[in-house]
Amino acid sequence: MRLTLLGTGNAAQVPVYNCDCLACIRAQTDLRYQRGPCSALLEFDDSRWLIDSGLTDLSQRFSPGSLKGILQTHYHADHAQGLLHLRWGQGIRIPVLGPPDPDGFADLYKHPGILDFSRTLKVFEIINLDGLQLTPVPLIHSKLTYGYVFAKEGKRFAYLTDTVGLPTDTEDYLKAETIDVLVLDCSFPPNEKISRNHNDFTMAMKVVETLNPRLAVLTHIGHELDVWLMTEGVKLPADVVIGREGMCFSS
Amino acid sequence: MRLTLLGTGNAAQVPVYNCDCLACIRAQTDLRYQRGPCSALLEFDDSRWLIDSGLTDLSQRFSPGSLKGILQTHYHADHAQGLLHLRWGQGIRIPVLGPPDPDGFADLYKHPGILDFSRTLKVFEIINLDGLQLTPVPLIHSKLTYGYVFAKEGKRFAYLTDTVGLPTDTEDYLKAETIDVLVLDCSFPPNEKISRNHNDFTMAMKVVETLNPRLAVLTHIGHELDVWLMTEGVKLPADVVIGREGMCFSS
Repeated sequence: MRLTLLGTGNAAQVPVYNCDCLACIRAQTDLRYQRGPCSALLEFDDSRWLIDSGLTDLSQRFSPGSLKGILQTHYHADHAQGLLHLRWGQGIRIPVLGPPDPDGFADLYKHPGILDFSRTLKVFEIINLDGLQLTPVPLIHSKLTYGYVFAKEGKRFAYLTDTVGLPTDTEDYLKAETIDVLVLDCSFPPNEKISRNHNDFTMAMKVVETLNPRLAVLTHIGHELDVWLMTEGVKLPADVVIGREGMCFSS
Repeated sequence: MRLTLLGTGNAAQVPVYNCDCLACIRAQTDLRYQRGPCSALLEFDDSRWLIDSGLTDLSQRFSPGSLKGILQTHYHADHAQGLLHLRWGQGIRIPVLGPPDPDGFADLYKHPGILDFSRTLKVFEIINLDGLQLTPVPLIHSKLTYGYVFAKEGKRFAYLTDTVGLPTDTEDYLKAETIDVLVLDCSFPPNEKISRNHNDFTMAMKVVETLNPRLAVLTHIGHELDVWLMTEGVKLPADVVIGREGMCFSS
């Protein structure tokens, strides 16, 4: 299986509109440093699943039929807004799997178009996804949010965003077996003020230490974290990387 | 004043995802025929107002401070989705004026960020917008929707979408004085089935006949209307034009 990061930014993305911080100026002048809505693409055998749909150009990125479906971690705007347009396609059905959020996002449930929201997932229920083993795990966020564990041929990837820390049951489940690649919410630099919705760097590193994956990849990155990385001469452990658009990880 | 059409499509836009009709194939191969979310830019003196915010790249299109504000006709996704990202800018406030829709769109009222939704408009109340005379008029749509009349130095533009026909009071108000440019919802080709939300070509032409503007510009165009125009050899009156992205009209 191969996991490609399509977007690694937080809701404001990088550059932030009207911000002249170091990270935003850099991203304005060098597109490689831009961060779009947090999302990823999972590919295995002949299957391609999009993880979160915050990118607003999905109909250009994915030719009809090229996606088996979409996995939603949750239904906040920056993770679901791309569905608002994609739904008005025709002649196909695109399954959108995710948590049983009664509200979903905007009027998507009322006017789903080609999107099929009929199947919701249960936490810790192992699902056969075209031959890959998928397990949703609960996260800690302001809206009902799932992380996803992907297992295939003895390899295990975990995609955990948006979250602040981890619930005990999720932590226990993840610790039980080796994680090869852990993609983890790390929105802020170390912060005295604890966010109710997202990891700062200190909390993310604590999760990394607890789960001890072979490789940890930080995502959902805000401009303040980028500035901190640029200015503080931060050194990262060799098995922790800062996510960037287009970065991909194969088992 | 100058009015530029930024988007002339309906919610599905052109090309429609996974459609192989003549209009969608043409738009795939020739970008000039693409139609994005219905929206326009009004410019006069030093002011620039965006009319509807369905375009999802507003932060790239409009440098900070370059817009005086945004006029919303209504809060359906294809007219408001671009606000979902723009709101997370910083250091400025962008007034968003529109009808007093209690729901707005998605979680925009709850998390407005830099957007200021505090001022709502009343129908037929003449507003001084940086020296231009703005009048909201009620339209007929599935959500509370306003058309806008812009008057400056004896010239009068009307922007009327989304609507199916016109309420009597709006029609009476618009007929009272000459309209120089009428931008009008025309989503469908002539249709036996009356849409509850949008004009088909027959209804749009009836409105044009009633209001008798110097120039009528059709917008909010769906792919079926484009196919009909391509295949039926339709001849239009000299004072009616099919809207296209980038088309602009000056007083």
